[in-house]
Amino acid sequence: MMKAKKTNGSALEKNLATLARRAREASRVLASLGTAKKNEVLRAMGSALVRHMDSILEANRKDVALAVKNGLPRAFIERLTLNETRVGEMAKSLTEVADLEDPVGGQIKAWSRPNGLSISKVRVPIGVILVIYESRPNVTSDCIGLCFKSGNAVILRGGSDAIKSNTAVFGILRRVVKSAGVPAEVINLVGTTDRRAVDKLLQMDQQINLVMPRGGEALIREVRDKSKIPVIKHYKGVCHIFVDKSADAAMARRIVLNAKVQRPGVCNAVETLLVHQDIAGSFLPGMIEALREARVEIRGCLRARRIVPRLARATEADWHAEYLDLILSVKVVNDIRRAIEHINHYGSSHSDAIITRDKESAELFLKDVDSACVYVNASTRFTDGYQFGLGAEIGISTDRLHARGPMGLEELTTYKYEIRGTGQVRE
Amino acid sequence: MMKAKKTNGSALEKNLATLARRAREASRVLASLGTAKKNEVLRAMGSALVRHMDSILEANRKDVALAVKNGLPRAFIERLTLNETRVGEMAKSLTEVADLEDPVGGQIKAWSRPNGLSISKVRVPIGVILVIYESRPNVTSDCIGLCFKSGNAVILRGGSDAIKSNTAVFGILRRVVKSAGVPAEVINLVGTTDRRAVDKLLQMDQQINLVMPRGGEALIREVRDKSKIPVIKHYKGVCHIFVDKSADAAMARRIVLNAKVQRPGVCNAVETLLVHQDIAGSFLPGMIEALREARVEIRGCLRARRIVPRLARATEADWHAEYLDLILSVKVVNDIRRAIEHINHYGSSHSDAIITRDKESAELFLKDVDSACVYVNASTRFTDGYQFGLGAEIGISTDRLHARGPMGLEELTTYKYEIRGTGQVRE
Repeated sequence: MMKAKKTNGSALEKNLATLARRAREASRVLASLGTAKKNEVLRAMGSALVRHMDSILEANRKDVALAVKNGLPRAFIERLTLNETRVGEMAKSLTEVADLEDPVGGQIKAWSRPNGLSISKVRVPIGVILVIYESRPNVTSDCIGLCFKSGNAVILRGGSDAIKSNTAVFGILRRVVKSAGVPAEVINLVGTTDRRAVDKLLQMDQQINLVMPRGGEALIREVRDKSKIPVIKHYKGVCHIFVDKSADAAMARRIVLNAKVQRPGVCNAVETLLVHQDIAGSFLPGMIEALREARVEIRGCLRARRIVPRLARATEADWHAEYLDLILSVKVVNDIRRAIEHINHYGSSHSDAIITRDKESAELFLKDVDSACVYVNASTRFTDGYQFGLGAEIGISTDRLHARGPMGLEELTTYKYEIRGTGQVRE
Repeated sequence: MMKAKKTNGSALEKNLATLARRAREASRVLASLGTAKKNEVLRAMGSALVRHMDSILEANRKDVALAVKNGLPRAFIERLTLNETRVGEMAKSLTEVADLEDPVGGQIKAWSRPNGLSISKVRVPIGVILVIYESRPNVTSDCIGLCFKSGNAVILRGGSDAIKSNTAVFGILRRVVKSAGVPAEVINLVGTTDRRAVDKLLQMDQQINLVMPRGGEALIREVRDKSKIPVIKHYKGVCHIFVDKSADAAMARRIVLNAKVQRPGVCNAVETLLVHQDIAGSFLPGMIEALREARVEIRGCLRARRIVPRLARATEADWHAEYLDLILSVKVVNDIRRAIEHINHYGSSHSDAIITRDKESAELFLKDVDSACVYVNASTRFTDGYQFGLGAEIGISTDRLHARGPMGLEELTTYKYEIRGTGQVRE
């Protein structure tokens, strides 16, 4: 771990350059490490977290005490706080990653050319991944586990409010790596809280291959603007459910309630409900009553407010809003085309659903809604690595390149072409 | 086409924003266009180029005359110049793209979850692609064809020296698109030669999804530094051939000659020859004689110079050099490990080959050389979309994310998840 809290700018840069260069060198060793060895280390990491539970919790108590003293919001402190259960979950995640299939070396496809060349496209690690994140200390062990299994060296830059917790977790895991005979520099934590560190790392495109910022939109945009390194990001989830005229109303009600209420603070929760005008009169009153019973605040368009009295009025800002809260905007639309246009215009290309009994509408929606995950007759809440069966996820991409939607181990790899010949030359 | 040569900065920005927004809207229509219709338009494009041969050649003559007047280098003028054969090839390429399989809608994989959700990962267009290129007018029609077939709207920004040729080609192809009833804005050419246009386009990440700069390294780095939009790029090709101790010497000689001499000015030509010390004494003299007969200038390391007299000395800069010319650097290495280290250190992760009869060495080289294309017993010159059987290529990526190596139609797509349910909600 690099400690450079009090150094000047050029010493900081030199330290970070050394860290990045060593990570790069170590990544080449990790790329060739066998699956069995990687799994052994991952399981040892899980055990070590449990064994050193006390020191992790002690470090965390100091972070939490300082956060309380600094008057940080309750939700923030809640995310920061560790306890035995949470550390146990962190350990379990590492063991679960050991159980997942190793993507490295997997053959994507293979073919032969008329001249006898045999071409094989195989998965390889991306190289060195920089993860920039905020207050949750579990991200430290999660990212270490997923990057390690996919053969990537990782450089972690956590939030300054969690620095003691992150340092404790990282120190324990790094000792495991070291004692397994693997170069310790495959996992790295930027120990300084100097804000210039991120800016400097983002220039090191010779050593670092991918940046994944996790946190608020402002952080992510700043990283994107400054980075010379490719960034995969997740801005926000403005998810929609469109209730088509042919929808099973009971199913629609169940799905909308689930997508809004089950966990409103996450990116795959629904934020806007679109209802076909032909079903709005019969569907909306009961739907809104059910939502209100679940303490959801509703903001409706003019037509929705004609159908249901005492609805707050939705403004243009509402159609863009990711509430992450018990609030839902509701709009009546003329037809499926208008619903699709609304989603493609106001949405964040994350997760959107149609509830319909009409096969043609379902296929039209699947085809024309330009989002990472498009659902027919299911809750948007399924956009998640575990729910998809990917086993674990390092994030959900709202980008279009390299990875879209939930990112599992495969999305942490790239590929190379292996070409085997018998002396072929180009004519 | 946008004309804004004499406008001020804010008018320029407004014009470009309109162009980008319309391209985005048009891209949604193109994304849903059927394969048969797309192929029909591509064939009509090919015919139109041939039919309007005279006007293309006339426009090109003006560009060439100005380039000559401006004293531009002969190689540059050669690349700029069109003739009947070249325009015929441009037309043929469009027809060939029509014959390629449509990647859009293709299913990458599909699976079911225990809760009955059916998940399908399908290929979709990326959206709007900005291509920035230099003097070759054939890039105009090539990029239009490949983007159109893969369902992407394209914004072309060609070099100012080819503006009349590009405008002529573009105008002809756009009329074809329009008369086929497809929104004309699926293909776009930035008509102004105002240098600020590129800077402004690179900020439009809401409308443009991918930037592909094609040209010199300085141009590419500038685009990468300024862009808010993901960039896929190709810096350079510093390709290596390693002749292992167990190599078939005759095969090695044939392959090295081919990779250096057959077309030295391209990115997949070999630039550095590495030779195992055990074979260097017997192999190098004949190899270098053959290269010298082919007018290749050799720059050797100390050990190579001990074996072959009158060799120029290679400096550190030579190991980094992409000569793109009849020059080759030669280095004797202790073993395969040193060869791999040299390649991973000095190479550009483009294309590298081993010549060996030893299966173990071959597999080690394939695994540990960190390049897009790694060859056993074949010339590096095969790194090419046509040679790979991809049908056509829009470029070769030396990046690691999204696309690596030759980029064909598939690499111009991304994917979405289509999830079909029967009322599933998250527990």
